[in-house]
Amino acid sequence: MSKDLVIDAADPVLKSDFVTEMTRQIRAIDSYGVYDTATDIDVLDPLVLTKDRKRAIPIVGDPDEETLARVKAFYNAIAVMTEKECGKMAVPLMHISHEGFGRVLITVGKLVVMDKTLRDVHRFGFESLSKMKDEADKLLSVALNIVGKYPEVAGL
Amino acid sequence: MSKDLVIDAADPVLKSDFVTEMTRQIRAIDSYGVYDTATDIDVLDPLVLTKDRKRAIPIVGDPDEETLARVKAFYNAIAVMTEKECGKMAVPLMHISHEGFGRVLITVGKLVVMDKTLRDVHRFGFESLSKMKDEADKLLSVALNIVGKYPEVAGL
Repeated sequence: MSKDLVIDAADPVLKSDFVTEMTRQIRAIDSYGVYDTATDIDVLDPLVLTKDRKRAIPIVGDPDEETLARVKAFYNAIAVMTEKECGKMAVPLMHISHEGFGRVLITVGKLVVMDKTLRDVHRFGFESLSKMKDEADKLLSVALNIVGKYPEVAGL
Repeated sequence: MSKDLVIDAADPVLKSDFVTEMTRQIRAIDSYGVYDTATDIDVLDPLVLTKDRKRAIPIVGDPDEETLARVKAFYNAIAVMTEKECGKMAVPLMHISHEGFGRVLITVGKLVVMDKTLRDVHRFGFESLSKMKDEADKLLSVALNIVGKYPEVAGL
């Protein structure tokens, strides 16, 4: 929280459902209370990787705990949004190796509604908050589409 | 491998497809070559938890690397058997905490064919090799049943 913040406090995307849920998720898994006194912008800011910030991160590296927590928060938030929209329980399952490679699934009933391979997790982030929301909206719409197509399997 | 072995070398279950696959899996993920000079019985023996062996393990404990490898081998082997039987790729995904709690999924296409909560992983084992095979056969038959019921989702 010592570095310069890049998020504009007036950005309307801050009030969107997804970004609100994302903030909630990061605070929820913040077991050491790092963000107890932080504003929402402080919490979200490390998710924005501007070109300069990205350049400062080595190409190869192991993800640290905070980065892993943000990845977890992102997919948890997508699961929560999926659940809200379709009314059925959506469960994320993530496996990431120490080297930052892995896979994340979201299931609804017996249906896999999202399945993503993760790479270079130590560089997890988005060009802007809007890009993060766009990515989440895309994954969410695919997930809801699958649930709509196979409601019986999603209900198992 | 210093302890007394409990598996009978004449046990016909040793020749079953599942137990053969299980041995192959354990050897495959044995990156340090611990089992290089071991017989199949040496490899499989720690999976059998007789009453005496079980009593010797504390109720609460963290799973060690070898135990985790055996859990992984078990579900990998089920995925391989599922794949062989249904002819579609079956992928396992496992998440186990340091305390030995977790969840393991096997997916075929967009279909979750197995979904199990894991507890007390440090005590992972079976009363006998036959019991291990029975458990695997049960999980396999449920998995194949689901694939048969929703072939379209399994083909996605």
